[in-house]
Amino acid sequence: MVGYGFMGAAHSHAWRTAHRFFDLPLTPVLRTLSGRTESALVAAAERYGFEQTTTRWQDLVEDPEIDVIDICTPGDTHFEIAMAALAAGKHVLCEKPLANSVEESAKMAAAATEASRRGIRSICGFSYRRTPALAYARQLVAEGAVGEIRQVRAQYLQDWLSDADAPMTWRLDKDKAGSGALGDIGAHIIDLAQWISGQDIATVSGILETVVPTRPAAGDMQGLGGKGDLSGERQQVTVDDVALFTARFDSGVLGSFEATRMAQGRKNAMRVEINGSTGSIAFDFERMNELEIYDATADAGRQGFTRVLTTEPEHPYAAAWWPTGHGLGYEHTFTHEIADLVRAIGEGTDPSPSFEEALQVQRVLAAVEASSADGSRWLGVDPSAPETTAQTSQTSQTSQTTPSQERTR
Amino acid sequence: MVGYGFMGAAHSHAWRTAHRFFDLPLTPVLRTLSGRTESALVAAAERYGFEQTTTRWQDLVEDPEIDVIDICTPGDTHFEIAMAALAAGKHVLCEKPLANSVEESAKMAAAATEASRRGIRSICGFSYRRTPALAYARQLVAEGAVGEIRQVRAQYLQDWLSDADAPMTWRLDKDKAGSGALGDIGAHIIDLAQWISGQDIATVSGILETVVPTRPAAGDMQGLGGKGDLSGERQQVTVDDVALFTARFDSGVLGSFEATRMAQGRKNAMRVEINGSTGSIAFDFERMNELEIYDATADAGRQGFTRVLTTEPEHPYAAAWWPTGHGLGYEHTFTHEIADLVRAIGEGTDPSPSFEEALQVQRVLAAVEASSADGSRWLGVDPSAPETTAQTSQTSQTSQTTPSQERTR
Amino acid sequence: MVGYGFMGAAHSHAWRTAHRFFDLPLTPVLRTLSGRTESALVAAAERYGFEQTTTRWQDLVEDPEIDVIDICTPGDTHFEIAMAALAAGKHVLCEKPLANSVEESAKMAAAATEASRRGIRSICGFSYRRTPALAYARQLVAEGAVGEIRQVRAQYLQDWLSDADAPMTWRLDKDKAGSGALGDIGAHIIDLAQWISGQDIATVSGILETVVPTRPAAGDMQGLGGKGDLSGERQQVTVDDVALFTARFDSGVLGSFEATRMAQGRKNAMRVEINGSTGSIAFDFERMNELEIYDATADAGRQGFTRVLTTEPEHPYAAAWWPTGHGLGYEHTFTHEIADLVRAIGEGTDPSPSFEEALQVQRVLAAVEASSADGSRWLGVDPSAPETTAQTSQTSQTSQTTPSQERTR
Amino acid sequence: MVGYGFMGAAHSHAWRTAHRFFDLPLTPVLRTLSGRTESALVAAAERYGFEQTTTRWQDLVEDPEIDVIDICTPGDTHFEIAMAALAAGKHVLCEKPLANSVEESAKMAAAATEASRRGIRSICGFSYRRTPALAYARQLVAEGAVGEIRQVRAQYLQDWLSDADAPMTWRLDKDKAGSGALGDIGAHIIDLAQWISGQDIATVSGILETVVPTRPAAGDMQGLGGKGDLSGERQQVTVDDVALFTARFDSGVLGSFEATRMAQGRKNAMRVEINGSTGSIAFDFERMNELEIYDATADAGRQGFTRVLTTEPEHPYAAAWWPTGHGLGYEHTFTHEIADLVRAIGEGTDPSPSFEEALQVQRVLAAVEASSADGSRWLGVDPSAPETTAQTSQTSQTSQTTPSQERTR
Repeated sequence: MVGYGFMGAAHSHAWRTAHRFFDLPLTPVLRTLSGRTESALVAAAERYGFEQTTTRWQDLVEDPEIDVIDICTPGDTHFEIAMAALAAGKHVLCEKPLANSVEESAKMAAAATEASRRGIRSICGFSYRRTPALAYARQLVAEGAVGEIRQVRAQYLQDWLSDADAPMTWRLDKDKAGSGALGDIGAHIIDLAQWISGQDIATVSGILETVVPTRPAAGDMQGLGGKGDLSGERQQVTVDDVALFTARFDSGVLGSFEATRMAQGRKNAMRVEINGSTGSIAFDFERMNELEIYDATADAGRQGFTRVLTTEPEHPYAAAWWPTGHGLGYEHTFTHEIADLVRAIGEGTDPSPSFEEALQVQRVLAAVEASSADGSRWLGVDPSAPETTAQTSQTSQTSQTTPSQERTR
Repeated sequence: MVGYGFMGAAHSHAWRTAHRFFDLPLTPVLRTLSGRTESALVAAAERYGFEQTTTRWQDLVEDPEIDVIDICTPGDTHFEIAMAALAAGKHVLCEKPLANSVEESAKMAAAATEASRRGIRSICGFSYRRTPALAYARQLVAEGAVGEIRQVRAQYLQDWLSDADAPMTWRLDKDKAGSGALGDIGAHIIDLAQWISGQDIATVSGILETVVPTRPAAGDMQGLGGKGDLSGERQQVTVDDVALFTARFDSGVLGSFEATRMAQGRKNAMRVEINGSTGSIAFDFERMNELEIYDATADAGRQGFTRVLTTEPEHPYAAAWWPTGHGLGYEHTFTHEIADLVRAIGEGTDPSPSFEEALQVQRVLAAVEASSADGSRWLGVDPSAPETTAQTSQTSQTSQTTPSQERTR
Repeated sequence: MVGYGFMGAAHSHAWRTAHRFFDLPLTPVLRTLSGRTESALVAAAERYGFEQTTTRWQDLVEDPEIDVIDICTPGDTHFEIAMAALAAGKHVLCEKPLANSVEESAKMAAAATEASRRGIRSICGFSYRRTPALAYARQLVAEGAVGEIRQVRAQYLQDWLSDADAPMTWRLDKDKAGSGALGDIGAHIIDLAQWISGQDIATVSGILETVVPTRPAAGDMQGLGGKGDLSGERQQVTVDDVALFTARFDSGVLGSFEATRMAQGRKNAMRVEINGSTGSIAFDFERMNELEIYDATADAGRQGFTRVLTTEPEHPYAAAWWPTGHGLGYEHTFTHEIADLVRAIGEGTDPSPSFEEALQVQRVLAAVEASSADGSRWLGVDPSAPETTAQTSQTSQTSQTTPSQERTR
Repeated sequence: MVGYGFMGAAHSHAWRTAHRFFDLPLTPVLRTLSGRTESALVAAAERYGFEQTTTRWQDLVEDPEIDVIDICTPGDTHFEIAMAALAAGKHVLCEKPLANSVEESAKMAAAATEASRRGIRSICGFSYRRTPALAYARQLVAEGAVGEIRQVRAQYLQDWLSDADAPMTWRLDKDKAGSGALGDIGAHIIDLAQWISGQDIATVSGILETVVPTRPAAGDMQGLGGKGDLSGERQQVTVDDVALFTARFDSGVLGSFEATRMAQGRKNAMRVEINGSTGSIAFDFERMNELEIYDATADAGRQGFTRVLTTEPEHPYAAAWWPTGHGLGYEHTFTHEIADLVRAIGEGTDPSPSFEEALQVQRVLAAVEASSADGSRWLGVDPSAPETTAQTSQTSQTSQTTPSQERTR
């Protein structure tokens, strides 16, 4: 594993735990932890349960004992490590974002596809997909439980930048972080909206905003929520803290998206709602063990959103855990991810989300940025596609799209 | 009163009821009900408690006994009736939308301003403002309870058009209705967002959509929710059923708006959320007796959204009604509107929302429509203002706006 | 109408409003308001819309123009007025409690039964039954939606006595009020639990408690929530402020009941939950437009409590009001009560709750009081019934009861 | 560790995980797993990560390498194992119930007290105490956040016995299980109510019920939720499936308790609510990451239940885990328990809940059973205490108790 921060803690817990609750064809061993700062690295390795450490990530790639490389570093290093790992025949779990640019992502996706032919597996860490409620939502939508999709609504609301005196961090520096709310949390709802709906986003119109453009330098105490050093000069924030965009999926369906760190009081409100012709599903990660399901075909008088506790044996992943009504937590999403990855490796199948799927998310992010820079003009996500016309007037647009949809019902 | 449909029922209830619960300087008398179809009109007058009827609305304008004219007809008739009434020195309550065009609305606003100098009062029926929770939200925001506003989020979600076989109605015909979801329900959240935040919308970028472009003709049974005549030809829907737009308020704050009739399972989810630097408020009309308040200055560990039942004596309008915890319903918003209007007439003050405020809403609606027709380009709301630049890149925009906001805190 | 307090306001609103929204065979006229204090009476009559007033309630009984007498006075006067009214051939609406003793209640029930033979109708004001969600709950249970009932759970939680310095009032004086939380709010959940389940309570074991036994005298300002006169001596509270009891219904089902004014933060949390073999229903008056329904026969994985907004045309009373999702308020329960009463009078049928049903509630109240005074011993509700054996060990009890229930399924 | 069932899985996960997230003075090693069935035992040991196995639990007691013995077996074996372990100088974690009788529990408590003098630690597994929201609730109550406690309300609602054809299991056989809903889930809310309120229960009046007295034998498939073998004879259930009781705490405060497996739709609704003179707290384990707090001293108009996500650094245990808003799950309660136990061992302090506290719970359970068998008569919990008088009439009772409480405020 490369990287030992917050993601390192979550991933190593998952590697230690997955085979304790799931029947896996292989049993993971935590071999080597890699990182830059020797002392912190050694402490982390002991804490996380790794056998050894190295400050050279290349050592992992070169170690014949190692089968899987788990990349938990910041996005700007993903490309180099992942490409080397795939070339060396290692299975790769790469945290999102796949890379900091579409170009790098595309190369990684191509490399992963090629590696797959050699039996090498790769997966990008959109771990929220493994929330039982969301995996179940996808299943329901695929089974037709909401009918024809009418609208998609996705929000990722946080609040830790609401305070104008919250300190500057590397996450707010475009050179280091690549992107702000859009790339960090917006990427998750893009992935989920596409995955649950079974549709790709084709065009977008959006705006990025930096509501608080300067912040005090971080003082000694530097956690989220505290104040920065108010005595010194304020530093420039160079990424967005709010991202709003409208998307058209390739079916013609509209989706509205919001990623923000200015939603005072919303701690981790990652919400997805799909409205269809015969039903809806709604989810909020602040209540991650619940899925709200609306069935418009139920008896008149008895229709409403049903709050399902997704802790029943029928729900994805739930049977491996506790009795009904005993909820799961955030880190279970990672444990499920590792379980699925190990199973895929053992069974010789490709796990998802593939690098190709992650590339599609990357393209959407890039299109939103470009649209924002261009006055919220509608832009196509796939540069190789013919010029999109999503921005044409709604009547002509929909009179082309929807009737054909209806014909196929 | 002109018009005896759904709004006529709500208004006449309010006229009969307001002085029974509020101390008013004047006591309303329901004199004449006007409408087009004689038999239905007579039945409605008896049901609603009017003394007499007429099929000529001009009779009301000419009747010296009548002090107030309440216009509950479709939007395309508002202009003519309201202008005549104001000219004749009648106080006017005009249902929203003020008119079907900005031009007519502007003339009405000018006429109302002029009439006010003669002691004639006018008010536009954005009755949701009189929901105690929303009136209290405005008060809290004005008192600084959320600090500096960071974001506005407003949705009006309904679902009665989710079924592609719900029948065609005049509301879906642009010639008659003027607008679809945007004008009918979007207008409410535009008004509320501006009123609660105390800020006007300056520019917008939006898209209107007709998700289901053809519908069966209405059969004999024609209520919401039923099926149309599936045997005949389908008719063209000429208004939007989904409207999505992003707005920039004159302070620079961004707001996201959605009005839809495709949100399966959402019956009347009119939601407003204001996020600020030190707090938030959130509301959903499906739970109209509740306001959610977040206070970021509360003790660490005890912060969260507080669900306030707005039935305490401290809440607007609530003291006139029942003991705490005994909720109010939809029609109370109208009763409060009438109470405020009668009080304003008696006291010789101008009630709100004024026609001028309603005109501002109308301008926003028109700008959204224009933006949608122009590829979601950012457009200014006030045509007399210098060319807006909201669509410029976010960094320059916000580095101009926000520091000055911060200076004034 | 006799009495012009809070209940007088609610009832007169209902009398004025019912025929405006419901098709009734008769149109109510508010003839005479009776009360003790001349000046307040006259003001109330004007406010409520009565034609005339009298300080002698006997005048109403003697007035041949009057068909219905609505009794909104404190419980100790109900017996005399209702008996006189029935004797004089007036239809009677009597607020709950029917009377302050079982003896009086029994005589009133007998008189009502006898009067019914002469075409005279009587009804006791358990108005919460007319909450659409609760009327719908009864319908669902009767249709078998929850299967065989397993348990009943009912709470009425308020908080206005939590503060030990809330002032003494007549409601806390046993001589005047008859009972405390038990009789005032507990009576409602007893009535609802019996009505919705379709079963009578047979035996009870309970305890009454006065958590704060002395209170300051009321000062000048005397509303709920304020402080009493803290300078003077404290007065003795002689009724309960908390009542807890367990009940066994005549089918053998157990129910748990709580009525309290010490539940800090609960404003009007009147809650009823029925658990059955195949489903459950749950209700909280703080969200009076919602009913939660659980269906254990739904597809595995999709089971959960469904939040139904009871504003659909399929829900009792709802079709008379507004479009779906537009909620009703507290006073609608009274309007529905009057509508049903007027319809019953017009159609010559007996409305419910009858005085007989109210007598059953009274008997339960008396049994709870007696049980509390006797160390929470199990006591039968019906004194004419053979000695009850509810307190025998559970195994023998249930082995007698439940198998026979199961045989009849 | 002795026992490898559901609890064994939860405990071993906690032993493996605690030192990965908490700074502990000692690092646990999973030495030996003991159980009865060899093959299942070996599989479990591998799954859970134990070094070796034995079918003789005595081997653990005799092994000098072992410092801690974790008892996860059914209640009837606790006494023998724990006494032997303590005698051998092993620290003991004993699952609840401490034992199946008050007598055994008392001996174990005495042994634990004696062992403590030798530096041997013991703890009983009421793990729900380590839910962050509940640990925080206790802290708030202790700090006076709710003022003087007025009432306690506790429920543990499950539904897996609602179906009369759910199969017979050993849990429903009194000889094996000792108790039904009361002992299994009621014990948790008794412990929590006492722990959070800081008060012991002094007297109780209750009733136990077996709603479904016979059940089909378990067929091949035997999980919760399925049907038993409907072709054969039905077997007798000899424990309660519903337990209702009222308790008086030693301060005089009343509490109402319910433990049931008949609450259709409630999966794991362990609820605790404390109402006080100046505030309330409310919790439901189905939303275990939330605590509802009501502050009656907040500004008028802004009072309401605040939904706190207990994932902030200020909340007990939360800082060891993820960023704010990222919830924890059921098994975290065990991980926290192990962390606290290991820390106590390392620091030489006694962890809680002690065997003495567990004995108090056991006494309450026994008193409820005795009360149920004696017609719900009020019975004292502590047999050594003078005859209790809780069942005397409320006026005299409370006029004795409450004034003195008030004097001390």
